[in-house]
Amino acid sequence: MSFDYTPLFRNNLPAPAAARWGGFPKYSFIGGNNDAASVPVQPLLDALAKVMQRDGQQLATYGMNSGPQGYRPLREAIAKLLETNAHMPTDPDDMLITTGSNQGIDLVNDAFLSAGDTVIVEEVCYASSLSRLRYLGVNYVLIDVDEDGMNMAQLDQVLADLQSKGSQAKYIYTIPTVQNPSGTIMSVEKRQKMLDLARKYGVPIFEDDCYSDLTWDGTRPPTIRSMDDAGQVIYCATFSKSIAPALRIGYVVADWPVLSQLIPLKTDGGCGALEQMALAEFCNTQFNDHVAELRGTLKAKCDLMLSVLDEQFGTTAEIIPPKGGIFIWITMPEEVDTDKLAKVAAAQGVVINPGSEWSADPVSGRHRFRLCFGNPTHAQIREGVTLLAEICHEEFGVPLRGANVER
Amino acid sequence: MSFDYTPLFRNNLPAPAAARWGGFPKYSFIGGNNDAASVPVQPLLDALAKVMQRDGQQLATYGMNSGPQGYRPLREAIAKLLETNAHMPTDPDDMLITTGSNQGIDLVNDAFLSAGDTVIVEEVCYASSLSRLRYLGVNYVLIDVDEDGMNMAQLDQVLADLQSKGSQAKYIYTIPTVQNPSGTIMSVEKRQKMLDLARKYGVPIFEDDCYSDLTWDGTRPPTIRSMDDAGQVIYCATFSKSIAPALRIGYVVADWPVLSQLIPLKTDGGCGALEQMALAEFCNTQFNDHVAELRGTLKAKCDLMLSVLDEQFGTTAEIIPPKGGIFIWITMPEEVDTDKLAKVAAAQGVVINPGSEWSADPVSGRHRFRLCFGNPTHAQIREGVTLLAEICHEEFGVPLRGANVER
Repeated sequence: MSFDYTPLFRNNLPAPAAARWGGFPKYSFIGGNNDAASVPVQPLLDALAKVMQRDGQQLATYGMNSGPQGYRPLREAIAKLLETNAHMPTDPDDMLITTGSNQGIDLVNDAFLSAGDTVIVEEVCYASSLSRLRYLGVNYVLIDVDEDGMNMAQLDQVLADLQSKGSQAKYIYTIPTVQNPSGTIMSVEKRQKMLDLARKYGVPIFEDDCYSDLTWDGTRPPTIRSMDDAGQVIYCATFSKSIAPALRIGYVVADWPVLSQLIPLKTDGGCGALEQMALAEFCNTQFNDHVAELRGTLKAKCDLMLSVLDEQFGTTAEIIPPKGGIFIWITMPEEVDTDKLAKVAAAQGVVINPGSEWSADPVSGRHRFRLCFGNPTHAQIREGVTLLAEICHEEFGVPLRGANVER
Repeated sequence: MSFDYTPLFRNNLPAPAAARWGGFPKYSFIGGNNDAASVPVQPLLDALAKVMQRDGQQLATYGMNSGPQGYRPLREAIAKLLETNAHMPTDPDDMLITTGSNQGIDLVNDAFLSAGDTVIVEEVCYASSLSRLRYLGVNYVLIDVDEDGMNMAQLDQVLADLQSKGSQAKYIYTIPTVQNPSGTIMSVEKRQKMLDLARKYGVPIFEDDCYSDLTWDGTRPPTIRSMDDAGQVIYCATFSKSIAPALRIGYVVADWPVLSQLIPLKTDGGCGALEQMALAEFCNTQFNDHVAELRGTLKAKCDLMLSVLDEQFGTTAEIIPPKGGIFIWITMPEEVDTDKLAKVAAAQGVVINPGSEWSADPVSGRHRFRLCFGNPTHAQIREGVTLLAEICHEEFGVPLRGANVER
């Protein structure tokens, strides 16, 4: 007879995993996955071999003689990239290597948030950031995202309202560059304005910069943190999108008062040494070339997906082409319930992100959805999006078939 | 002017990190660090190269087509080792790869514990397990550790007492093989008895098996989990001690009702892919040979440290030689306050673990200390332990000098 753990679990656990892994569906348009052929397999191996030759014996100690903040040569290499690519000179001592940006987000939340607290988020937002806030019992206030980023008039209003109620937001969370899921880029003027508002109301900014290596034009605006001289911006990023999500290396950049609080909350004894060592060398020698090539590959997939969407959905789907990244955010007519669409499509092997999960207001997200194009092949994009349009037509009567579809 | 985060941090945070990493001290006898020359640098690289040739492109997806439980070939390789070496046939589906055993402990605690709960621990115990329980506000009840493991009569009594008070322990935590810090091994009879008691009182066992690859005689007793057929034992282990702590790969083995609750609590998007891939191959081909050699290296360091301790401390130090592992647990006369000893010695470059941190009852631990011998060289062991004896003599008058020390 099996032991019954039920009475022993603590209260308010998340729902248990429903089932064991069953493999990827035929057409998977979800998850921050990347182009398989673009993984720099041999360069990563070569980079690791070189560093292991020098530092391999350091694996014998926790932290590889770099302490709890992560392998120092990697922090130095990242700092160099941030200075060159993001106009953000960074002291490697102000950096904490994390297990992807996910752990960075968890650590920042753990340091600041308790149930009942308030944070400010973009109205369409990274699903895992939203689900974390819900799990923690934190309230979030929504700010619209315009084509050039968060609406600053609204932000000003919201911050003023909170202040007048004697309330205080713990942080303003933003993905300014290739916002997830809208694919927009916040203008430099708005970045400055956000910083001014943060200053005026005494609220920190939490800048999530996961996609900024992947802008189509290859340039990235200065980070908000780079425009700040008071340490009011906590910055996180990752190599998941620029190299490979399975590597699980991200980082937080913050001033010591914040970093010193995050370090003791990171109780896992450090991040994987082999990825840290491989990336330390790869970043110094090949990162920029690799990313330039990856951008082209992703842009081609994005263009293909946009053209298939146009061909199959026509004017039924409202799309603002993303400025980079790995996803497209799609608004459908009100009658299309994308929760239902996602469910029906999944049963036929087409998996999409319903907008309710990527909207701080699930109701407004209910007729939107997100499609990731990083991992599927060109053939999968063509077939999967076509199949999705058919399923959508059968379920909701739109897009109309025949009119704008050649077959 | 620097932004002031103080009013924004949540309550009850752990103390912030005091300072940035300053490097290792000259004589470091703390931390689960390992023998530097024994790190299998080239074999790990070769193993990784082989797997990357096959599966390198899988880095493009979270979870490498294995889902959230970790790279499936690694889980299969570990399952094989557990069957061969630990008499524990294991379904790879009942395993979750974690960032060292530290993350495994955090996940189990997160699933079961709330402030005010009670758990049962060994009276001398892994410091990081104890500090976690304190941080969570969990009460722990102490059970003495005899030379053949936890005292079962006491355990029976404690469980009966709790039951009579209508209370329930959330789990019994034990390191049965090469107990940390006592270095003892729990007998098979006691393992069976513990399981019987767990069954009788309806309490799960949390078996931490981090050191069991490192028994001097090369054999390990059956794990408690292997003796159980009701899924009442949650098992965790790691490659930190058998290969290298910087690799950050551990695992939890548990039945699905537990595992399915741990999976959603692991919010970091997976463990490092490169270590998982390297270990998957290394475990299949070289693990047992590597560990056999490592055991010899560590045993030689242990023997050296025991002989220097004997030479320098004589009968002042009471020591039960460990049955394996990387540490020695030392009991001093009552007048020696090891908190103070640790502090004074650290100032002279000799770093030790005071017993208060490794004892569930800090008072009883105050005249004990732990010395790790895995990482220091033979010369460092000789010089450091000698220096420690001198410092101890100067501070507390023991050990006596001259009588049992040749010089």
